[in-house]
Amino acid sequence: MPSLHAIIPAGGAGTRLWPVSRAGHPKFLLDLTGSGRSLLQQTYDRLVPLVGTAGVNVITGARHRDAVVAQLPDLPGDQVVAEPAPRDSMPAIGLMAALIRRRDPDALVASFAADHLIRGEDRFQDAVRQAADVAREGFVTTIGLRPTSPSTAYGYIEAGDALTAAPDAATVLRFVEKPEVDLAREYLRAGTFRWNAGMFVSRADVMLDHLRREQPRLHAGIEEIAAAWGDSDRDAVLERTWPTLTKIAIDHALAEPVAAAGGVAMVRADFGWSDIGDFAAVSGAVHAGETDLGIVGDPRDVAAIDSSGIVVTSGRAVSLLGVDDIVVVDTPDALLVTTRARAQQVKELVDHWRDAGREDLL
Amino acid sequence: MPSLHAIIPAGGAGTRLWPVSRAGHPKFLLDLTGSGRSLLQQTYDRLVPLVGTAGVNVITGARHRDAVVAQLPDLPGDQVVAEPAPRDSMPAIGLMAALIRRRDPDALVASFAADHLIRGEDRFQDAVRQAADVAREGFVTTIGLRPTSPSTAYGYIEAGDALTAAPDAATVLRFVEKPEVDLAREYLRAGTFRWNAGMFVSRADVMLDHLRREQPRLHAGIEEIAAAWGDSDRDAVLERTWPTLTKIAIDHALAEPVAAAGGVAMVRADFGWSDIGDFAAVSGAVHAGETDLGIVGDPRDVAAIDSSGIVVTSGRAVSLLGVDDIVVVDTPDALLVTTRARAQQVKELVDHWRDAGREDLL
Repeated sequence: MPSLHAIIPAGGAGTRLWPVSRAGHPKFLLDLTGSGRSLLQQTYDRLVPLVGTAGVNVITGARHRDAVVAQLPDLPGDQVVAEPAPRDSMPAIGLMAALIRRRDPDALVASFAADHLIRGEDRFQDAVRQAADVAREGFVTTIGLRPTSPSTAYGYIEAGDALTAAPDAATVLRFVEKPEVDLAREYLRAGTFRWNAGMFVSRADVMLDHLRREQPRLHAGIEEIAAAWGDSDRDAVLERTWPTLTKIAIDHALAEPVAAAGGVAMVRADFGWSDIGDFAAVSGAVHAGETDLGIVGDPRDVAAIDSSGIVVTSGRAVSLLGVDDIVVVDTPDALLVTTRARAQQVKELVDHWRDAGREDLL
Repeated sequence: MPSLHAIIPAGGAGTRLWPVSRAGHPKFLLDLTGSGRSLLQQTYDRLVPLVGTAGVNVITGARHRDAVVAQLPDLPGDQVVAEPAPRDSMPAIGLMAALIRRRDPDALVASFAADHLIRGEDRFQDAVRQAADVAREGFVTTIGLRPTSPSTAYGYIEAGDALTAAPDAATVLRFVEKPEVDLAREYLRAGTFRWNAGMFVSRADVMLDHLRREQPRLHAGIEEIAAAWGDSDRDAVLERTWPTLTKIAIDHALAEPVAAAGGVAMVRADFGWSDIGDFAAVSGAVHAGETDLGIVGDPRDVAAIDSSGIVVTSGRAVSLLGVDDIVVVDTPDALLVTTRARAQQVKELVDHWRDAGREDLL
């Protein structure tokens, strides 16, 4: 049996989660739900039972490598790779796949975002195992989550015919980007559309072959870096080559074109999943109790009368009176007040502060 | 001509303005509108042209006396009297009137809250001068503000017939407490009702005579303290007698019963006035510009998109997105988020923190 290796590209600023998420302390390093473990740590925790500590590989920005190593003390340091600059997910996942294949030519690789939230570890692990079975047959295999609402915050995947490689496997007809709400409702009604959770399982050689066809320059750059990995000039090659790699997401580089050619499969799953991309999603992920007011932080720091929504505290006393659907995020130097309905637009405030020259807040 | 002396009872916690107003730093010491002068200082500033520095007398809680003296450095220290404990406005105003009459038997006294906001100094001064003319004839004279809305936050005064003592003088038929909104609308329509701004001008002897009749025990206590004022046992008499004085507001002790007996007059005025009693009133008092978002503090600390209401900052960056009618009050240890519509209920939050044992926040 080829062994399964996990790849965690730990990047992304989480701008819509500002001011909790900052450039220097991004979303994946945060414990957004008050669980005691950061999103990265939770991702690691749920992968170790599938691939072992030796099978977990993280690639992150150079400035965050120390923080990642500190958060994952059990993970050997050489399994945490620092990318010199963010080039989106394909270069990161591609390089890790290339490095893994050099050690294990038959390897299966499975990539998972570092900053998503999952409930139902058993069903998650079952889905990944099924995806590995499908991937062994040569499919780039994704995991399609059963949508529970007509979300406009997620991309969708349309399922085709069932496959026999695993109980919940099916072909993928196409990937679609975040839809408008009318289209999202249609997808939900149709029953054949699934949320794209950005999880991909593939044979390393299959992924790299697709990449060679679809993005030959990117593939060549990755292989050049991977070839130099054990050499003394590794850092020089990395520093020289990395900035030239095409900045592109795996969805656009591989998933969409390969799906169009019939090479992508999915496993239909229904564990709890959220990309926890904005404070409305944080609100949904935090148990709110009877009042529909979620609290991240010490509930004793919050007084609320006739209020609903989400409060993120950092030790100051927060008092709410008669505010519905509210989002209050309190950090030592910056305060955000918005609504769950507007949570997707928080980026505009970040733009404001950048334009105002307040780099200290970003 | 008898001379006019101003009395400023500087008390009241301003609980509805928490967390800006605190027990140790109450409303009258605050600059709630970003003017650069506290409400007490603004009160002082507008009285000096009427009565001179020598004519301003402040009575405040013992714990606030140092702060008052520090805010009013031009005011001789013996014109700032410390009351050992809060007993509401009648004992404070009565004692000051008794002290002033002992120095100046023909004195007129005029009392003004320390924590109200006034726009239109000329019209204010004209109204006070008219009130002094009416008071000379023996009336306890109040200033009735033309209502500009059916406010339920203010008490009302009903005017009777015009008096000849001053151009805008009239008798007062009765004082009415804060009405429900339907009644407030009726008052506004009737045209004969005025807002009670808590301003009283009277001959000192007239006031004290009324007090002797209406509240004989309170009057006796005040006169006992005033008689001992120049003596070595002044502090002992004050400490012993003050706590026994009836705790009562001047409205209930004098204004209402004397009005019923025909002894109260008013001067009808229409300068801008607000008791600035809650954050909705603060919002109304702060120039909001085009966006209907008022800011107390440095506007550069506030980013707002599609938002209206009032923000009070204390240096942190405050970001608002899509919140209408919002009240955000940011202090170093406590944050309040409510709406202008609910601003009157802020006291309930203060109660919450008291019940929770958080005396540090009160």
